[in-house]
Amino acid sequence: MVGVDFGTLSGRAVVVRVSDGAELGSAVHEYTHRVIEQTLPGSDVKLGPDWALQSPQDWIDVLKIAVPAAIAAAGVEPEQVIGIGTDFTACTVLPTTADGTPLCFETPELPHAWPKLWKHHAAQPHADRINELAARRGESWLPRYGGKISSEWEFAKGLQLLEEAPDVYARTERWIEAADWIIWQLTGVESRNICTVGYKGIFQDGAYPSEEFLAELNPGFAGFVGKLATGSVGDRVGDDVNGVTVAPLGGLAGRLTGQAATWTGLPEGIAVAVGNVDAHVTNAAADAVRPGQMVAIMGTSTCHVMPSDQHAEVPGMCGVVRDGIVPGLWGYEAGQSAVGDIFAWFVDNFGHDGHEQLTALAEKQAVGQHGLVALDWFGGNRSVLVDHNLSGVIIGQTLATKPEDVYRALIESTAYGARMIVETFEKSGVPVEEFIVAGGLLKNPFLMQVYADVLRRPLSVIGSDQGPALGSAIHAAVAAGAYPGIEEAAAAMGKRTEAAYVPDEANADAYDRLYAEYRRLHDFFADGQMLHTLRAIRNEAHA
Amino acid sequence: MVGVDFGTLSGRAVVVRVSDGAELGSAVHEYTHRVIEQTLPGSDVKLGPDWALQSPQDWIDVLKIAVPAAIAAAGVEPEQVIGIGTDFTACTVLPTTADGTPLCFETPELPHAWPKLWKHHAAQPHADRINELAARRGESWLPRYGGKISSEWEFAKGLQLLEEAPDVYARTERWIEAADWIIWQLTGVESRNICTVGYKGIFQDGAYPSEEFLAELNPGFAGFVGKLATGSVGDRVGDDVNGVTVAPLGGLAGRLTGQAATWTGLPEGIAVAVGNVDAHVTNAAADAVRPGQMVAIMGTSTCHVMPSDQHAEVPGMCGVVRDGIVPGLWGYEAGQSAVGDIFAWFVDNFGHDGHEQLTALAEKQAVGQHGLVALDWFGGNRSVLVDHNLSGVIIGQTLATKPEDVYRALIESTAYGARMIVETFEKSGVPVEEFIVAGGLLKNPFLMQVYADVLRRPLSVIGSDQGPALGSAIHAAVAAGAYPGIEEAAAAMGKRTEAAYVPDEANADAYDRLYAEYRRLHDFFADGQMLHTLRAIRNEAHA
Repeated sequence: MVGVDFGTLSGRAVVVRVSDGAELGSAVHEYTHRVIEQTLPGSDVKLGPDWALQSPQDWIDVLKIAVPAAIAAAGVEPEQVIGIGTDFTACTVLPTTADGTPLCFETPELPHAWPKLWKHHAAQPHADRINELAARRGESWLPRYGGKISSEWEFAKGLQLLEEAPDVYARTERWIEAADWIIWQLTGVESRNICTVGYKGIFQDGAYPSEEFLAELNPGFAGFVGKLATGSVGDRVGDDVNGVTVAPLGGLAGRLTGQAATWTGLPEGIAVAVGNVDAHVTNAAADAVRPGQMVAIMGTSTCHVMPSDQHAEVPGMCGVVRDGIVPGLWGYEAGQSAVGDIFAWFVDNFGHDGHEQLTALAEKQAVGQHGLVALDWFGGNRSVLVDHNLSGVIIGQTLATKPEDVYRALIESTAYGARMIVETFEKSGVPVEEFIVAGGLLKNPFLMQVYADVLRRPLSVIGSDQGPALGSAIHAAVAAGAYPGIEEAAAAMGKRTEAAYVPDEANADAYDRLYAEYRRLHDFFADGQMLHTLRAIRNEAHA
Repeated sequence: MVGVDFGTLSGRAVVVRVSDGAELGSAVHEYTHRVIEQTLPGSDVKLGPDWALQSPQDWIDVLKIAVPAAIAAAGVEPEQVIGIGTDFTACTVLPTTADGTPLCFETPELPHAWPKLWKHHAAQPHADRINELAARRGESWLPRYGGKISSEWEFAKGLQLLEEAPDVYARTERWIEAADWIIWQLTGVESRNICTVGYKGIFQDGAYPSEEFLAELNPGFAGFVGKLATGSVGDRVGDDVNGVTVAPLGGLAGRLTGQAATWTGLPEGIAVAVGNVDAHVTNAAADAVRPGQMVAIMGTSTCHVMPSDQHAEVPGMCGVVRDGIVPGLWGYEAGQSAVGDIFAWFVDNFGHDGHEQLTALAEKQAVGQHGLVALDWFGGNRSVLVDHNLSGVIIGQTLATKPEDVYRALIESTAYGARMIVETFEKSGVPVEEFIVAGGLLKNPFLMQVYADVLRRPLSVIGSDQGPALGSAIHAAVAAGAYPGIEEAAAAMGKRTEAAYVPDEANADAYDRLYAEYRRLHDFFADGQMLHTLRAIRNEAHA
């Protein structure tokens, strides 16, 4: 089984044994164009601020280079591979023709013809208008996204496309997630996975936003859904929901084409799983697809993904999507805008020492010894305030405060932020039964212990450091029919250590007191009165 | 004329021309024992936390070494010198016998026999008790000190001496400011200057705290005033106030003794001015002894000293003393606990660059461009909150925040703190007519411009970088009869450039908006609810 994880800077292929999930070999291909932020490739066309694009050619190259290399590293014969699954960053979205040709292959000189990477943030004004109108009209889908949709998502980026490049918009026959586009390349068949349809495409209760709503945003936007819905075009994969075809996770998207077999060196005709998102597919890799199993993918930012049998509108969540993680359950997503990014920012700018030395000094301290509390809003606050214009706060410094004190306080602040999210879920009637950590920050055991102490719960940890690719392979195993469903495949192939970190009761008590101060600080600054004013003054000064 | 400034780490002598204040030569002697904080000299007797002592021998060495060296550097004949004046840190206080012999010369193995430097903070519990009792009894002198006396002052340190070393207390015949002790060494006559008597000795409206009050603190403390008052002992210098002899500033303390002439190389019998405090004597050096001329001595901390013809109880001031700066006027003192110390703390711990580079980067910015506001409480808050258990706050950081942003915000925070003090004086009915800067931070023109913009007033600057020593020489000139009073002497010998920095109107407008946020932050954290809690948790964690 092969799983391929398409990340922000590179793609990774992993060869996984179907019986037990053993990772036999892997390979990484760094994208040639990385993230396109300044000028278009091979030209001097400049991009605006907050733009971030990618090249579809880089994705194809992952299939051509990383997949064969992983097979070779695993020492298996390509013929032993019975299926392939993939996951992608999201919302990474591109305009194509009706046959799936990216418009940037036709008009590479036009910025809007290129795929917009998830972290393209230039559609914020468009997102603001969508949110404002949706709130005014009381659109029923808005609470499913914690009250605000993101500028990163399909409709915001689509509206930006329409208004800034109407010609490109007119030529856009399909507006498709890269997660689904790569499946189209592998199978020759267009499909739309339920995960991105729900979390990034505002498809809720069997419907997209209404034509009326879209027309009120901009008359030219009224027919936008026609570029998304697969109900009326080409072959269909998945279930028909009110005329929209939605492909279930773990489903069979199609069979590997001859061309894709040539690219990858894999046998033509093997199973290709429905596309998926890197965060959401990680739950399978951690065998965490049952209700209340919250997986926190902790890296530069943190994404919290949890299936549940309870449905509720949780304030400040990123989204809740029926079947969005695993069929039959509600899938919840929440997030912290910056986590590892905060520690990197501190070390790069304010630390004389690196992460390891600062951690070594910080972990010698007793809880509260530094006298500090910070608000972890250095990259804004996604959950639970949904306000990217908030900023960081540190209180309690004295002339005796050392860098390791601040470093530790920053780590703790992100743990308090995580606790706030967990408590908000539980208060909303969505129990969190288990907290499972995946992602790059796992490598810092001190940080993990802080989270266990602050959360007052045992932490489980994923057993793989290539979780998304493993998760994709698990989905592929289901698509290939090796298991009846994701839950069974995850149980056999996923890896998780329960209670890898257990809270220290005395530390947890001490953190309860500090968390009370964090809450007080949180509530004081939550309305943005001061922090928005400072940001506005800042923006004026820069203008 | 010779002025000698006894500082925390060294003593400086300056030779000054009587006619115009020209500084002809100077010399510095670094104290051999510097600040004694760990163990007593020549022994392994350990000191407690927050202890800080000095050696009287170091002070004598300044007379023996720096004074002759300054004369030599000036290229004048000792016979041309007609007077000497001194200033000292305060409250730096020591126990002596009736003839002025420091007890540490007799029992050098006893910590309490040594002079306690101003920054000896181990008497905080004693200060707390004094404040608590004074508030409960409604002592009339308490509002003269902004509502709280400091642990640095004579009564707090005296009570600590009594309770921790009753034997030494019993042997203490005189409890005397170093400012007055050095005059005793020069003249052979004990005197008590009105400045330290008032600001550090709680002498108000012609009386010390009552025996009844002192007895209630500790029965053994009832007679403490007998160790201070000079009404009944030896020769008297100055005015008799209810049996207490108080020497006026600019007064003649006595004539240089033969022994002191031998030490200094100066002629026996020349005028010796009444002792004074380094901060307060600086007003004369800046020719700022008229009502409303506030001198800010800006260094590691800032001291604000201002004569006024108005009497008011200004919240959070350090003290108001009649004749305490110049005869005939009320003398006000306020302070910021840490200023230059904050910048040094930041550079030492969090800056990859030094002060000059950070300043160069910071001054390129437009006002508010960094998006930050800080509370300058990293060393607590003296004025106007009188709370040393407060701590620093920084808000508004993002992942784009650079060290120069924080550095600039810290500079601005101290300017906001200064504006808060100025506004508090004016709101209390004590006008601030002119803001004059002295001290080490003068060397940073960018910082000065920030203060001018934040305060919305022109800044005057002192024309000497050895202000206290020059001020002492001016006082000596008065004592020697060269001028009829301090005002005339300061006008001739003091140096000040008016409006050296003028506010930029646009910047001042921008700072008004940021200052409004500082005030909001100030008012939110002023009650200490959060910051005291963090400090308490910190102290428990350390315990």
